[in-house]
Amino acid sequence: MNDKPVFAPSCPLPATVEGRVELAHGGGGRAMARLIESLILPAFDNPALRRRHDGAAIDTGGPCAFSTDSYVVRPLFFPGGDIGSLAVNGTVNDLAMCGARPLWLSAGFILEEGLPLADLARVVASMAQAAASTGVAIVTGDLKVVERGKADGMYINTSGVGRLMPGADLHPRAVQPGDAIILSGDIGRHGIAVMAARESLGFESLPESDCAPMADAALALLEAGIRVRCLRDPTRGGVASALVEIAEASGRSLAIDERAVPVLPEISAACELLGFDPLHVANEGRFLAFVAAADAERAVEVLRAHEVSKDAVRIGSVGPGRDGRVTMRTAIGGNRIVDMLSGEQLPRIC
Amino acid sequence: MNDKPVFAPSCPLPATVEGRVELAHGGGGRAMARLIESLILPAFDNPALRRRHDGAAIDTGGPCAFSTDSYVVRPLFFPGGDIGSLAVNGTVNDLAMCGARPLWLSAGFILEEGLPLADLARVVASMAQAAASTGVAIVTGDLKVVERGKADGMYINTSGVGRLMPGADLHPRAVQPGDAIILSGDIGRHGIAVMAARESLGFESLPESDCAPMADAALALLEAGIRVRCLRDPTRGGVASALVEIAEASGRSLAIDERAVPVLPEISAACELLGFDPLHVANEGRFLAFVAAADAERAVEVLRAHEVSKDAVRIGSVGPGRDGRVTMRTAIGGNRIVDMLSGEQLPRIC
Repeated sequence: MNDKPVFAPSCPLPATVEGRVELAHGGGGRAMARLIESLILPAFDNPALRRRHDGAAIDTGGPCAFSTDSYVVRPLFFPGGDIGSLAVNGTVNDLAMCGARPLWLSAGFILEEGLPLADLARVVASMAQAAASTGVAIVTGDLKVVERGKADGMYINTSGVGRLMPGADLHPRAVQPGDAIILSGDIGRHGIAVMAARESLGFESLPESDCAPMADAALALLEAGIRVRCLRDPTRGGVASALVEIAEASGRSLAIDERAVPVLPEISAACELLGFDPLHVANEGRFLAFVAAADAERAVEVLRAHEVSKDAVRIGSVGPGRDGRVTMRTAIGGNRIVDMLSGEQLPRIC
Repeated sequence: MNDKPVFAPSCPLPATVEGRVELAHGGGGRAMARLIESLILPAFDNPALRRRHDGAAIDTGGPCAFSTDSYVVRPLFFPGGDIGSLAVNGTVNDLAMCGARPLWLSAGFILEEGLPLADLARVVASMAQAAASTGVAIVTGDLKVVERGKADGMYINTSGVGRLMPGADLHPRAVQPGDAIILSGDIGRHGIAVMAARESLGFESLPESDCAPMADAALALLEAGIRVRCLRDPTRGGVASALVEIAEASGRSLAIDERAVPVLPEISAACELLGFDPLHVANEGRFLAFVAAADAERAVEVLRAHEVSKDAVRIGSVGPGRDGRVTMRTAIGGNRIVDMLSGEQLPRIC
């Protein structure tokens, strides 16, 4: 609640909204109805929401993907985004990683008593804007209020349903020896941006969070007929954790080349200063694609045609081994095992 | 986190689990992977979860309902249930109120650092049991950890997808003059049970929470060919808020008879002592059904065949008026307007 934005807002500010969240706003009575009707429904407006039922009717017309994420990022507003855009893009991206076109989202708010309603209005506007930019509708929701001192202003859960692309059957076990590992752009920006905003680290001109919807870029691979085995967005735990998860789930050996992994110099410098490995830092607008070796070049081309993945690059391959490990050829020519983070490095970055 | 259960647990205790939640459990690294693999996946086990992807593939095969709810109940354990059974049954019930057969749930955990893992294990076991009892699968999930002092042990979001029953088109605007208003049982038990557990009010032998899945009973109405216009579960804000919401959304005048509304004597006494109106107290195992007048008797019969709605009773009718109001004929023969609660009566009951 003390997360005052000190940078350009990521979305237009709504008209002046006064007042603060009160416990009564979560009581299921008149105050809650008024808050939802005045501040939330107009922003998310669509026919399903207008029916005001306990749930939304959705006509899926075929196999779907279903995903959920709760967002507890601190501060609520950070360079390049806020908890609202993060909550929408995060779940949109999870659906895209399943090979699904994101279509419907739910929004569950847990608000802290005392949160300025203006902050809520700004987050809601940001969610609406993020949803519109990807073509998803926020069709059902829920609102709870907890006492002052709980919830850091607000937590948001979004769950989503998307239509699976025909033939999409993406999962770690589909990964095959020889597959190329492609990364959609430079890494580490989200984690460092949130960390810098939270701790007022005073870095000059740090890049913003990469928070962005990736469905169009990711699904373009499938539309282009690329043989995609698995997609994964390296959020918490970074690229290292995402790769290790896939290596362990598939039992395959993955090999990447450190020099091929794009890291902006400012991010690299901030990581060095903080003692972080960029491979462990969270991203919110990047993904890993495992594709058939013969399709690798074309996959990179397809991705580079999209702004969000314009710096896509091949960073490695799936090896013949079956040890479920990730190895990295380092910049100085050695080899090291890449592992998940064992402790906690950057809490509350999503 | 100080919510020590002082009553019979609602579900079998899992084998001894030691340790507490740490921030590292939410970091996306090794600690999180281990917690999820050891404590959560075995309880919810199903093929979709076993694929360990960012989302679950679900084959909906037709029109669906999609719903979400976050649960912040305090204390975590209360007579008749806990946050886990509440989170599963609550979303199952929301789907049923849409006329959908609940099939798939997501589970998003926000855990407080320091929460005993044994409490988490117990809640997870309770969720698994509740899911199994209704035939829903928990197919995707998320886990976040926030610092000590936040989140009261844990908050849970569940979202759900269910298949709409053929022809089901239930919503407030479908309500028609002459329709019967049926209530599935006695009211006020959940709110009073949670309140009593939280405040250690020392009431003797209070009834337990009514927390229960209602999909079978509610959908039996549709299966029996009853002309159901709208279903609604009177949770936060109670029966009064549910009726007012439907009156306002439909623009119809609703009339109920106070003497027809079942309230157990112990609940009635507790409400009197606390200054609560039972019509405003939350329920988690009751629903309102608006059905065509000619089908009313048969609807009550169908409901009474199910344990969860064995005390179903007609409590009123939809009148010819179009003022969007709810009136109640009181026990002493007067008439009064029923309104939503304007402030907050019982925070954090779901």
